[in-house]
Amino acid sequence: MNDLTVNADRLWSNHLSLAEITDPEQPYMRRSFSNLYVKGREWLVERFRQAGLKVHLDKGGNLIGRREGSRSDTKTIMLGSHSDSVPSGGRFDGISGVLAALEVAHCLKDGGQHLHHGLEIVDFLAEEPSEFGLSCVGSRAMVGMLEPGMLALKNSSGETLDQAVTRMGGDISKLGGDIRNDILAFIELHIEQGPVLEREDKKVGVVTAIAGITRIEVSFLGKAGHAGTVPMSGRQDALCAAADLIGRVQHLAMELGQKNQYHFVATTGHIDVKPNAANVVPGHTSLIIDARAERREMMNEFVDALRSEANGCAKSGNVRLTTFEVLSDGLPAVCDSRLCDLIAKEARSLELPAKFMVSGAGHDAAFLSHVAPTAMIFVPCQDGLSHHPDEWATSEDLADGTTLMLRAVMALDQREIL
Amino acid sequence: MNDLTVNADRLWSNHLSLAEITDPEQPYMRRSFSNLYVKGREWLVERFRQAGLKVHLDKGGNLIGRREGSRSDTKTIMLGSHSDSVPSGGRFDGISGVLAALEVAHCLKDGGQHLHHGLEIVDFLAEEPSEFGLSCVGSRAMVGMLEPGMLALKNSSGETLDQAVTRMGGDISKLGGDIRNDILAFIELHIEQGPVLEREDKKVGVVTAIAGITRIEVSFLGKAGHAGTVPMSGRQDALCAAADLIGRVQHLAMELGQKNQYHFVATTGHIDVKPNAANVVPGHTSLIIDARAERREMMNEFVDALRSEANGCAKSGNVRLTTFEVLSDGLPAVCDSRLCDLIAKEARSLELPAKFMVSGAGHDAAFLSHVAPTAMIFVPCQDGLSHHPDEWATSEDLADGTTLMLRAVMALDQREIL
Repeated sequence: MNDLTVNADRLWSNHLSLAEITDPEQPYMRRSFSNLYVKGREWLVERFRQAGLKVHLDKGGNLIGRREGSRSDTKTIMLGSHSDSVPSGGRFDGISGVLAALEVAHCLKDGGQHLHHGLEIVDFLAEEPSEFGLSCVGSRAMVGMLEPGMLALKNSSGETLDQAVTRMGGDISKLGGDIRNDILAFIELHIEQGPVLEREDKKVGVVTAIAGITRIEVSFLGKAGHAGTVPMSGRQDALCAAADLIGRVQHLAMELGQKNQYHFVATTGHIDVKPNAANVVPGHTSLIIDARAERREMMNEFVDALRSEANGCAKSGNVRLTTFEVLSDGLPAVCDSRLCDLIAKEARSLELPAKFMVSGAGHDAAFLSHVAPTAMIFVPCQDGLSHHPDEWATSEDLADGTTLMLRAVMALDQREIL
Repeated sequence: MNDLTVNADRLWSNHLSLAEITDPEQPYMRRSFSNLYVKGREWLVERFRQAGLKVHLDKGGNLIGRREGSRSDTKTIMLGSHSDSVPSGGRFDGISGVLAALEVAHCLKDGGQHLHHGLEIVDFLAEEPSEFGLSCVGSRAMVGMLEPGMLALKNSSGETLDQAVTRMGGDISKLGGDIRNDILAFIELHIEQGPVLEREDKKVGVVTAIAGITRIEVSFLGKAGHAGTVPMSGRQDALCAAADLIGRVQHLAMELGQKNQYHFVATTGHIDVKPNAANVVPGHTSLIIDARAERREMMNEFVDALRSEANGCAKSGNVRLTTFEVLSDGLPAVCDSRLCDLIAKEARSLELPAKFMVSGAGHDAAFLSHVAPTAMIFVPCQDGLSHHPDEWATSEDLADGTTLMLRAVMALDQREIL
């Protein structure tokens, strides 16, 4: 059984082929709901069939290739990720997870290997934030977390998400029905999208949790004034207050991360300054702070401290704190420890240097964890770069991660329960 | 002689009339070189003539109304400011200085008052930064500081400044010739554009110096990264480094201002962040810092300290300082102390509470100070607001300032030399 080996060349050439289905003006781009996305899925359907899979679309518009198990009373082992990209994105984010899952199925077919459990390979619909401003559409749908308010979201053409999912082949009318309770385990392979594995010379990451993401908008209202005529002492400079807070955000995040061993990061990635003119004291600033926590209590502690710091910056900067609004708030997802241990054990037997780690990025796996034991396998990506045309993973690393997933599937299949 | 009084109603109604010559979509806007600007000048020519002035355009395109003196061997007393505005500007900045000068001339005519000296009322061409990206075009030209490189600047239609000045009636070919050396004194009345007079309940400001303005661009290059996956410790966050510097700029400016009694302010008014997305660690930031100093040595001290701080921020922020560039650098202009004292003395005799102060904003007077004893009279403006449709000065304050200018002119006229 352990003689099965993944076909690294096939896995790699599938990456290159799918990468060709891109907007040529903005490689690599295959945004969800677009014609290119449909074309990519048609390519996938053909490959799924070549791997012996029976293909269908579920009610949430997820593309699923299924291989039946030899026993009818067993649950399903599910593997997958997403084939859509951000604008001017890469060739690996999401895509590698779908193609690795496909490769696992193909290996099993090539090797004539029968599993007790059914196996499903999933291309989840619209994982990246689309024109509708929502991520993980398909995985939310699969676990019953695609709410009516989300389905009413519209793109710039006025199409609702409801209509777009239907256009992709989903069946929204059935979304209210049963959610999947037949999944033995879900495993998603993904590039790390960070520098840790490369930096520590590890070959795979075994993801123990997916950080919760909270976004907070903070705005300060000062008083715009002439940069030459308003004395320093009487100023209400909204940019100085914002700069003060940016420093405190960084300090708070470092402190929280050092205080315990759990993953925590916070970033001020967006700033809007008005009027943003060289000769005017800034009258208004708005920041968006993105925080990611492995543990909910750390996020709560951060948001409380941030509120206090924002008030402090307003007071010492002689400006008003006009907005402190949580724009979005996602809970952390915990991966299944037995499944993680199983994967780590297989990595050891393959002599792949592995690291238990937390995903700071969101993934479909976070939603799947609500209905099934879930784990992720990270493969290194060059320089931590992602969501960029230069995003890169090596053929060897992808093959190693896929081999690990194959071994994990086969080990799982031998168990009655996880 | 001291029975002459300004006509406050005429002064005020002239403000309201000139304000009507505006782009109705963006009041109050009469940008230099535009058709509206020409229309405004036509209105001025008519008013200049009603005040008994002989009107001509000088080689720099400045509109001048002249009243001859009774003696032919004397120099000229010059008063003036500018009639152009910024986009969506106000009804007083520049305009009040032209209309106050006009009112002084009108009073002299109404009172049948003859001066020994010639009097010139000037509407300087294009004081505000125009489409050509240069301010004080006409006053530079008058003192021989409109350089060939400046004349080659182009607007968005491809017209050179040279051509535009000619279109306004100037004669560029003569710019290289003699510069004005016949000016006994130049006085410019202007709204303060700051909050100091209002805050201290003063009726006029006697400007002792016009701050030099230096603009510096500072850029940091970090490394863009995923806001969730790049650990805090390995980050090269260009916005954190910029925020650090913004705080240090404020601190430096306050320190310099407190260390001595000379005017000094510094502002970070403009920031550009890339990619400026909530979920990306910022990879690049660029700041424009605007500093204004009464004394050149303070500006030198500031620029040196800023360079050192920028290097420090780069080092502690783990980013590279890629730009430290002085974009523009204007020397401070010193007003004539005897002229200032003369004005202050007249203010006392009028029982107008006056304050000696420094102008943080640039003015035509700064250029005139190169060729003649120069002073400015500031009048309070509401809430320090300027370059804004709500810019406001009261009729009473404008009349008081104009009366002071009239008295100063008459006192000057009695002197053989300043």
